[in-house]
Amino acid sequence: MVAPLKVGVAGLGTVGAALVALVARQRAELAARCGRPIEIVAVCARSKAKNRGVDLKKFSWFSDPVKLARDPGIDVFVELIGGAGDPAKSAVEAALAAGKSVVTANKALLARHGTSLAARAEKHRVALNFEASVCGAIPIVKTLRQGLAGNSFSRIYGILNGTCNYILTRMEQEQLAFAACLKDAQRLGYAEANPAFDIEGHDTAQKLAILASLAFGTRVDQSAVYVEGISSIAPADLTAADELGYRVKLLGVAEKTATGIEQRVHPTMVRKDSAIARVMGVTNAVTLDTPGIDPITLVGPGAGGMATASAVVSDLADIARGLRSPPFGRPAAALAAGKKAPMQRHAGGYYIRLNALDRPGTFASIARHLAKEKISLESIVQHRRGERPHGGDDPKSPAAPAPVILITYATTEDGVRRALKAIQKTGLIAGKPQLIRIEKN
Amino acid sequence: MVAPLKVGVAGLGTVGAALVALVARQRAELAARCGRPIEIVAVCARSKAKNRGVDLKKFSWFSDPVKLARDPGIDVFVELIGGAGDPAKSAVEAALAAGKSVVTANKALLARHGTSLAARAEKHRVALNFEASVCGAIPIVKTLRQGLAGNSFSRIYGILNGTCNYILTRMEQEQLAFAACLKDAQRLGYAEANPAFDIEGHDTAQKLAILASLAFGTRVDQSAVYVEGISSIAPADLTAADELGYRVKLLGVAEKTATGIEQRVHPTMVRKDSAIARVMGVTNAVTLDTPGIDPITLVGPGAGGMATASAVVSDLADIARGLRSPPFGRPAAALAAGKKAPMQRHAGGYYIRLNALDRPGTFASIARHLAKEKISLESIVQHRRGERPHGGDDPKSPAAPAPVILITYATTEDGVRRALKAIQKTGLIAGKPQLIRIEKN
Repeated sequence: MVAPLKVGVAGLGTVGAALVALVARQRAELAARCGRPIEIVAVCARSKAKNRGVDLKKFSWFSDPVKLARDPGIDVFVELIGGAGDPAKSAVEAALAAGKSVVTANKALLARHGTSLAARAEKHRVALNFEASVCGAIPIVKTLRQGLAGNSFSRIYGILNGTCNYILTRMEQEQLAFAACLKDAQRLGYAEANPAFDIEGHDTAQKLAILASLAFGTRVDQSAVYVEGISSIAPADLTAADELGYRVKLLGVAEKTATGIEQRVHPTMVRKDSAIARVMGVTNAVTLDTPGIDPITLVGPGAGGMATASAVVSDLADIARGLRSPPFGRPAAALAAGKKAPMQRHAGGYYIRLNALDRPGTFASIARHLAKEKISLESIVQHRRGERPHGGDDPKSPAAPAPVILITYATTEDGVRRALKAIQKTGLIAGKPQLIRIEKN
Repeated sequence: MVAPLKVGVAGLGTVGAALVALVARQRAELAARCGRPIEIVAVCARSKAKNRGVDLKKFSWFSDPVKLARDPGIDVFVELIGGAGDPAKSAVEAALAAGKSVVTANKALLARHGTSLAARAEKHRVALNFEASVCGAIPIVKTLRQGLAGNSFSRIYGILNGTCNYILTRMEQEQLAFAACLKDAQRLGYAEANPAFDIEGHDTAQKLAILASLAFGTRVDQSAVYVEGISSIAPADLTAADELGYRVKLLGVAEKTATGIEQRVHPTMVRKDSAIARVMGVTNAVTLDTPGIDPITLVGPGAGGMATASAVVSDLADIARGLRSPPFGRPAAALAAGKKAPMQRHAGGYYIRLNALDRPGTFASIARHLAKEKISLESIVQHRRGERPHGGDDPKSPAAPAPVILITYATTEDGVRRALKAIQKTGLIAGKPQLIRIEKN
């Protein structure tokens, strides 16, 4: 038997503890698959005293991840610290500089410094694997890096954040308000105490930046991602979507357009019969569009200690087997400085919800402002004042403004925004108009 | 730039022609990804004169695939001939013996000779890649071989044959008979003139045997697969399934059981809300069950020239990059002689449809025979004689036997078969009882 692959693990949170358990459980199977055993030999965390439910006695203990990264006793450094800055960044750099392969679950680090870290890994001829950084157990990184190397992609989109999908699912299925569902998600441990990172779309944006680079061969560029979260979504939007044959999902979308690679994260209307629309709860999914063939969709658990740890182990297995590709599928130096497609130029259909005041000429005025921007309407839904689509009389009617739902044919972001601004100025609508992009699929 | 990877292609049907076109189209992208160009240099087919819609003039022409396989001008032999026997088998063996990597789409060859061919490839330290042999563009082979190397599987199941799924989808959605849908599938090119291989489940069985080996580390063993096709499925079964919350799909299922690895292909009732139940038409899908984490499902086009060719190209890309794993994920010599779990021992729920004669005591007799085998019933559906579940009076009533639908709790194949035999002997039912296994998911 060949010498074991010696692994040092920095970060012993949920994923780190699950990794220790999984490597022990899969010991024989991994050795059979890889032709050599995989052995955790050293770990690093802040508190040695904390009970993590796994036996750490046989591992060397480090309190400084950079020291562990440089330790001659390890072949591979697993970074589960998190965060785009230090100590994660300096520890990963130290490991690569010491000629050690790195496995990381750190999406923030990769979204910010992915290209330069990939260049370092290639220079030292070591692996930089990060299957666990996007969508937990779904093997999307390897699928893009290798599995579908024969394809070129026109678009890649997905539900990359389980928290948001859980909230939207509950809101839709139980007609609950956003705030109530968020509170439940926090109670169940699906959302952080400070949920902004998830619900404002930043988590999705980091993952999307990584996937876009893999799919399109461009440098990782989180700053190129347009980001909008789900906190403005109201039950009324989900009800209207349902009536029109759609569901609302927070999608990350990266798309080849005439103006460059468009990267955007926002609530999206997707047709109910599409694979992505059927993904419920905390589950993640990614769909890949390739010219000439039907889309491919991968669905699975996007988070959780064991799901994420299993992705780390598959990355370790590749290293144990001596399989190494450029981290982003092609050499870092060959990654193109992706031409960022500006969001103002985004083209597509739109869902618009307005609270129109009950005055003569209101609708004519709205229609005129849309026509001025050459926006054509595919559907208009306005229920009789006082009649609510899903039972019960509106207690505030007839004084309350009536919601008007408009679905546009393909148009541009610019045009829609100008039209809505002009409509708001007329004073004929109450509050802010709701705008949700429609994704063709 | 490194020297190109020189490829010889044997077989120029739909997939071969698409491959020639795709390699040309992806030329620059492949070179960037792999660090070296991929070049088709030689081809082989029976008729040189046939117009295949692609320019073959620049390739060397071979009429004997074995000669092409041995040709010193190629680095990789792509086998798209098909069939478990010669010339495909001898050509693949010749290529491996000559130290050339092989890429094949040939499920029949792998299901029959996979283990021995893998041993030959390993002996000569070359690759034997076969992503295209199962589920077209879905990267399921690589996902099992590498992407999920960190997981162990308890079950893997899927819709592996687009023809059957197309027929079942049409039958369900339009309440059509099997024969009419098969005819349509043939007209549309989804089914062969001789459809037995698809509709009797043998195509699914070959693919399942390959996936089971990859998932469970056992030798490929097509003969261990229990096979039952879809030709007995009646619209009445699909209607009853729908009422009970199920859909009927032809699944290939490989499962770890107490008695060994169970491999089976048969029409299956799956819950409507499961990912697999939502896969419609010619689309394929595979679900992977791993202890401790939620299932992972891959969905996509399972056939078609371009979809299959893209899988061949991704296999070529791995070879160009120098990535090589044992063909079945672990060395052929380490593949276990899987203990075959006999179908008689299969445990699960069953759907039974009987045409019960209208005589006193019929149901009591049926119930007694089931109780004798310790079979408990979860549901019983019998519509009032003359009342048909989906509108219209039964023209043959009240003389016609009434269909009785039974759903059992988990029991064994053996017991159900004995009970049905005994029930048939009573003479109280007309025709053959219908039996469909229920898959938990």
